[in-house]
Amino acid sequence: MTHVAILGATGYTALELIKLMLRHPDVDITAVTSRQAGDHIRAVHPQLTDRIDLNLESLSTEQLADRADCVFSCLPHAASASTVAPLVESGMKVVDFSADYRLRDVASYEKWYGGTHPDPDRVGKTPYGLPEFFKDDIVTASLVANPGCYPTSAILALAPLLKNNLISPDGIIIDSKSGVSGAGRTAKMGTLYPECNESVSAYGVGRHRHMPEISQILERISGQSTDVIFTPHLVPMNRGILSTAYSRPIGSTNEKNLFDAFHACYEDCPFVRVVTPLPHTRDVVNTNYCDVTVRVVKDLVVTISCEDNLLKGASGAAVQNFNLMFGYPETTALL
Amino acid sequence: MTHVAILGATGYTALELIKLMLRHPDVDITAVTSRQAGDHIRAVHPQLTDRIDLNLESLSTEQLADRADCVFSCLPHAASASTVAPLVESGMKVVDFSADYRLRDVASYEKWYGGTHPDPDRVGKTPYGLPEFFKDDIVTASLVANPGCYPTSAILALAPLLKNNLISPDGIIIDSKSGVSGAGRTAKMGTLYPECNESVSAYGVGRHRHMPEISQILERISGQSTDVIFTPHLVPMNRGILSTAYSRPIGSTNEKNLFDAFHACYEDCPFVRVVTPLPHTRDVVNTNYCDVTVRVVKDLVVTISCEDNLLKGASGAAVQNFNLMFGYPETTALL
Amino acid sequence: MTHVAILGATGYTALELIKLMLRHPDVDITAVTSRQAGDHIRAVHPQLTDRIDLNLESLSTEQLADRADCVFSCLPHAASASTVAPLVESGMKVVDFSADYRLRDVASYEKWYGGTHPDPDRVGKTPYGLPEFFKDDIVTASLVANPGCYPTSAILALAPLLKNNLISPDGIIIDSKSGVSGAGRTAKMGTLYPECNESVSAYGVGRHRHMPEISQILERISGQSTDVIFTPHLVPMNRGILSTAYSRPIGSTNEKNLFDAFHACYEDCPFVRVVTPLPHTRDVVNTNYCDVTVRVVKDLVVTISCEDNLLKGASGAAVQNFNLMFGYPETTALL
Amino acid sequence: MTHVAILGATGYTALELIKLMLRHPDVDITAVTSRQAGDHIRAVHPQLTDRIDLNLESLSTEQLADRADCVFSCLPHAASASTVAPLVESGMKVVDFSADYRLRDVASYEKWYGGTHPDPDRVGKTPYGLPEFFKDDIVTASLVANPGCYPTSAILALAPLLKNNLISPDGIIIDSKSGVSGAGRTAKMGTLYPECNESVSAYGVGRHRHMPEISQILERISGQSTDVIFTPHLVPMNRGILSTAYSRPIGSTNEKNLFDAFHACYEDCPFVRVVTPLPHTRDVVNTNYCDVTVRVVKDLVVTISCEDNLLKGASGAAVQNFNLMFGYPETTALL
Repeated sequence: MTHVAILGATGYTALELIKLMLRHPDVDITAVTSRQAGDHIRAVHPQLTDRIDLNLESLSTEQLADRADCVFSCLPHAASASTVAPLVESGMKVVDFSADYRLRDVASYEKWYGGTHPDPDRVGKTPYGLPEFFKDDIVTASLVANPGCYPTSAILALAPLLKNNLISPDGIIIDSKSGVSGAGRTAKMGTLYPECNESVSAYGVGRHRHMPEISQILERISGQSTDVIFTPHLVPMNRGILSTAYSRPIGSTNEKNLFDAFHACYEDCPFVRVVTPLPHTRDVVNTNYCDVTVRVVKDLVVTISCEDNLLKGASGAAVQNFNLMFGYPETTALL
Repeated sequence: MTHVAILGATGYTALELIKLMLRHPDVDITAVTSRQAGDHIRAVHPQLTDRIDLNLESLSTEQLADRADCVFSCLPHAASASTVAPLVESGMKVVDFSADYRLRDVASYEKWYGGTHPDPDRVGKTPYGLPEFFKDDIVTASLVANPGCYPTSAILALAPLLKNNLISPDGIIIDSKSGVSGAGRTAKMGTLYPECNESVSAYGVGRHRHMPEISQILERISGQSTDVIFTPHLVPMNRGILSTAYSRPIGSTNEKNLFDAFHACYEDCPFVRVVTPLPHTRDVVNTNYCDVTVRVVKDLVVTISCEDNLLKGASGAAVQNFNLMFGYPETTALL
Repeated sequence: MTHVAILGATGYTALELIKLMLRHPDVDITAVTSRQAGDHIRAVHPQLTDRIDLNLESLSTEQLADRADCVFSCLPHAASASTVAPLVESGMKVVDFSADYRLRDVASYEKWYGGTHPDPDRVGKTPYGLPEFFKDDIVTASLVANPGCYPTSAILALAPLLKNNLISPDGIIIDSKSGVSGAGRTAKMGTLYPECNESVSAYGVGRHRHMPEISQILERISGQSTDVIFTPHLVPMNRGILSTAYSRPIGSTNEKNLFDAFHACYEDCPFVRVVTPLPHTRDVVNTNYCDVTVRVVKDLVVTISCEDNLLKGASGAAVQNFNLMFGYPETTALL
Repeated sequence: MTHVAILGATGYTALELIKLMLRHPDVDITAVTSRQAGDHIRAVHPQLTDRIDLNLESLSTEQLADRADCVFSCLPHAASASTVAPLVESGMKVVDFSADYRLRDVASYEKWYGGTHPDPDRVGKTPYGLPEFFKDDIVTASLVANPGCYPTSAILALAPLLKNNLISPDGIIIDSKSGVSGAGRTAKMGTLYPECNESVSAYGVGRHRHMPEISQILERISGQSTDVIFTPHLVPMNRGILSTAYSRPIGSTNEKNLFDAFHACYEDCPFVRVVTPLPHTRDVVNTNYCDVTVRVVKDLVVTISCEDNLLKGASGAAVQNFNLMFGYPETTALL
């Protein structure tokens, strides 16, 4: 039995994580923390009524170390690294949902996230929690940087093709469409129901923080400098991301080569499905799957991938990483 | 040409009002006010880009009197009466969207809304802006209490039947379903997209402030003490209210009697459609119509009515009242 | 290991059933049938890609008996009884999703469903698959009538109060709101996306076939003649039913009595949660829970209950029944 | 007063057209046709109850010529040209919503639409009904090819930049997101509510018939061979299209040049709004506006445009064309 604590337990990713962990036969959730300490967790997540009996608490590093073997941090960036660093030092294993340990260096972090990084030494040395490409590192890690939701969908569609030199690493365009839960659970006018419903819009064009994450991880995987343009869009649905990426084929690349690369790459990956029909987010929502497909259109390669942003794009991936870190079968609690 | 000013212009009802007024051939919108004074109105309502060129302002009674012949107040209750009273006294005509002048007496107001009424003398003497029943009063009024969204749908379905003694005034149950725009445009966690989407819930059971409004206005129309129970529900859509009301027939009431009463009552009412098929909110949304129908089921009368909560339930009714107060044809800008 | 076959596997309830059964440690799905025999199941349910490897087949009673210990019939009424009767006779256990065995007698069936009942002898003798009230019968049954989606939500909210003589069995009004998946997966103009989206409507007022099911089962449970009026509404969401029921209290019934009755009745029921706050369908969707609460408003009792129409209202209940029929823990595959 | 007839009046575009025309002071709708001849139009469009009193009819060319000065054809491709050709020959003016007269030659038509063109002589000689670029031709035309919904959004965003040599005509990528009404009002499983809701998907990748329309019209406007890749996506909302297009800047193109080109091009166009903030479809839905903006991201030009697919993308454009063809102010009935 592994004891786990969840930091920042009031948001959507924490709720999904708790629901997954309640299905995990070898896990006991022993603490949930929040600035709203004192409330029972069912007060913020009525779905959990009768399913878990914990109050939200405010806990020190020592208290967490007493209670848990593993900590999942759903705290915002910067706050997360500040909290997580001493936990790692005290010997706990940590899955960090924030962006604090995803980028390759402190300079990138400070350029895209601002401020000073609270734990610069671990930046660039922390495994990126995408088991499809970094499983060996994850298995032995005490700290894993859980990937961003958009990056997961983009990287899973592009990395096998880049790695196999089937597409050019330059001028890749990623046009992503996400449900609204990706914007978090904070009261903001822009995500009120009547503002988002029956509307599509682009946001953060050319400025979204997942753009450098995508290109840096694609570089890490493919070993070549990669340039991507990323445009996220908000779509009126709760969950799901679909990423349509446009890249240029190298040489005589055809659809068969591309599918072959996908199949070879994901043969042993339980949560990536290489599909022939065009995928719909409805078929991956509430699962940990990412569905990927590819088409050649004129002189372009069009890849399409989709996932549940809260599962494979967040909490499902976190459980996958947890399973690897603690020696459980990778799919436990995820099927 | 009538000059109009709109107070509290940043919300959903104000936006609809402005859009209607832009279609009114004899109206010039001369001022829009808000605590966010300074911004161009297109900054808060991008829909209005290139359609109206006004900044949000903070204006005194005198400034409003200089600028406008008619004021529409979309301010919250209490704030509205405080602002509106001096405007009426300075000779302006006012349509008040708040609940401040809807109830029959100050005691009711203070019971349901709390606080002290800022303008008690006009309470109980202000016409209720439902032209289908109070047209004569509205035509000569300088102040009109624009009805609540739920009450309009409930009253239009029940008043003709009560007035004609076809149903009992006791034990009427009104079960209403509303889109989320009715909850306003303020950032609250409860109306975030992922909280409301794909979910239905009841709220304010037995405690909603529209309950006394419905029963008091039904009494005013039918001349008999009326007792209603009102349960509002939130439904995942932007606009529209559907009210299903259950009452007991008197004597040998049958569907023909009920439809006859509807037809007789609404013969000259351009915005109430007595329909035979069961109505859908999709067919009244973006219009000023209220569709009503009725069925006898076992020993109960079931009326069903629907409207756009922002139009017939708010801004459309306001324009209808405005047209009557200023001598324009009742349907101007509304078809 | 129990071998199960699913008849009529192309619809929404069958899909949910398959997904649940894939989580059941002691179940092997050995056949899925359909008139579309020949296709792989992933062609009609892309969600199941890589999760189950079966083709849709057309199978005789004998073939089914060879392949399965238990059959779930998702066939339409009449077709279901015709198919199910010989299966039961050949010794298989059957959970029937159709309405064929839910009503108390053939006369009711023929009044509400028309036609001649294909298996009249089992009508009125088949346990109604609501384990909260009929567990003993289910445990020993070879055929169970899985409840209708609306009846489950209504009965769970009303039965404990009727049974305890807290509310009158006369004049009960049930106003239900359902997501669109309840209308099935057949191409019809009325359930096209643009027809349902952003709209609420009532349908089948006074004529819905779940009305007699609700009153007959309430009678069976409470032992007294019960009269209900049932009005279903279609709400723009995929899944979920919320039922608001209005009844008259008997004697000095108060909220405490009502909650006490709920708590006493559901103490040992793992899938009914008696909740204090007003429930939202979002908190039960994708679960097998039904959340119930109650309020006294003036001289009425208002109960509110909600469930996922495809789970507790269909496939989740079916698995619960299956677990009981085969001696598995009631909650297996359902938490 | 101009008399107009609408062919194929049961779909979504016809409904919007009728609603617009009911606001047109100089128009009388004198006939609506359909294969469902006999029904009152309110039976298929309950929104029109009490607003227009016409039965659906089946009419010959002669009967149409007797009744109407102008015909709007909402018939499917091929059927439309067959019906429209004799109407034009009999001297009527026609706005054709189908694709029959949009492409430059019969070869393109037959490649993308199949079959034999029923009226080949008018192909390539019919004005394309985009008044922003072809007003002079439209004014004098007896037949106008009303543009496709996707092409309008894409062309309005790209044409001014191509025409001014600010972007390269090669390798333009158009990634569009559309509401479901674009799929029409025919019962198909793929557009059932539960299939589309809470899901995004791409469709027709590399094969959509609007791809050649976009490139051919961009060529007609810019005078240079233009190559586009077009990927449509279905988004869970009723109405609205947002097109995100990626192209390569020529020379020292910067955002200021791009906005200048937009402003110069659309200075006198009442229905194209050049906006600075990123546009949302919610702000153009139910209007005839197309909002366009542009960003330079790294070495790409990203244009974003949005419109209501049923208005500026169909019926609004048709009314705009009608106004020009009959000498009414371009904006009549459209503001």
